[in-house]
Amino acid sequence: MRVVVPFAPDRPKTRLAPVLDEAERAALARTMLDDVLDALSTLDRERRVSVEPCVLSTAPVDCAAPVTVDDRSLSVAVNDALPDGETDDPVAVVMADLALATPDALADLFDPDADVVLAPGRGGGTNALVARDPAFSVDYHGASFRDHRDIVSAAGASLHVVDSYRLATDVDEPADLVEVVLHGEGATPEWLREAGFTLETTEGRVEVTRK
Amino acid sequence: MRVVVPFAPDRPKTRLAPVLDEAERAALARTMLDDVLDALSTLDRERRVSVEPCVLSTAPVDCAAPVTVDDRSLSVAVNDALPDGETDDPVAVVMADLALATPDALADLFDPDADVVLAPGRGGGTNALVARDPAFSVDYHGASFRDHRDIVSAAGASLHVVDSYRLATDVDEPADLVEVVLHGEGATPEWLREAGFTLETTEGRVEVTRK
Repeated sequence: MRVVVPFAPDRPKTRLAPVLDEAERAALARTMLDDVLDALSTLDRERRVSVEPCVLSTAPVDCAAPVTVDDRSLSVAVNDALPDGETDDPVAVVMADLALATPDALADLFDPDADVVLAPGRGGGTNALVARDPAFSVDYHGASFRDHRDIVSAAGASLHVVDSYRLATDVDEPADLVEVVLHGEGATPEWLREAGFTLETTEGRVEVTRK
Repeated sequence: MRVVVPFAPDRPKTRLAPVLDEAERAALARTMLDDVLDALSTLDRERRVSVEPCVLSTAPVDCAAPVTVDDRSLSVAVNDALPDGETDDPVAVVMADLALATPDALADLFDPDADVVLAPGRGGGTNALVARDPAFSVDYHGASFRDHRDIVSAAGASLHVVDSYRLATDVDEPADLVEVVLHGEGATPEWLREAGFTLETTEGRVEVTRK
């Protein structure tokens, strides 16, 4: 399956600015991309799913997959990569900040045979999807999961929604780092530990703090 | 399977105080409990899993399952209900604020045959579990998921971790209401809509606002 991984190296994770400077945010974003590509290539190597990853980046980036540079808006660039009706090949879209993505979680996305498979992100987003129906298109603005569900319904296509905490966890805000430190299995939790982040429990809430 | 559902009607959801008064928080907590019990009884009715729910409440409550009143701390009360080695019957613990729990998500918790099955909650918690090994005990204080993983390991027991966004979503804070409005399938999303909550997108973030 062709897997498009959108990546935006020019505006790295601005909502993490309270805890990481710009160079660190760029390094973290890059580490998360590597983890996503690594989980995809493990699936392919274990022959569970044939995966052809392609990074769809707003600027050149040197990484373990072919890169297409496209500085248009996310939705426009992704729609250009989705099935156009000329072939029957499905296309998946997996966000580059899914630092908890594992081969098993991605297999749960790729396996269902529906026309469209959606993995919701926390906060109304759509963190990953598979499109087999050329009538489907993306609109990542706002509560995209609801919009995507409506687009599938309007197209008369079949829908499968993946129930995965790992795929629902994109890393945007300091609170999301708790999830990565606790549940990450790739290079990103190690990067965070080396940057000095540790878990702390304050008044019953678990947070990451930096030393 | 015996399923313990801890419930604390005396301190209902204090972190939702910015958007709901105390009587409303009590009503919301009660509606979420009903949704959890309903998802459990659907599983039992469809004969997918034999479920015997028991609400473990800090005060009397009138609901669709037998209630045991126990005002000790959560961990002490739950440990008293876990397998003690005298029978081989597994015991599940499912939190009462899992407003997104569906029969399918709960089946993913009950089906694996490991000595201990854990469903992580966002923020380091443990939202649901199944214990088959009497050497396992709970400690809900702090980052309980990590502690529970360590307890399983120290007991030499086998562990399965459930990857479910639905089970990872407990409802504690206003931001969690976004998830319920978007993805809830029971009475809770309806309760929130009747209370005036709607989705709003501000600067790319999806929030609930109340009218």
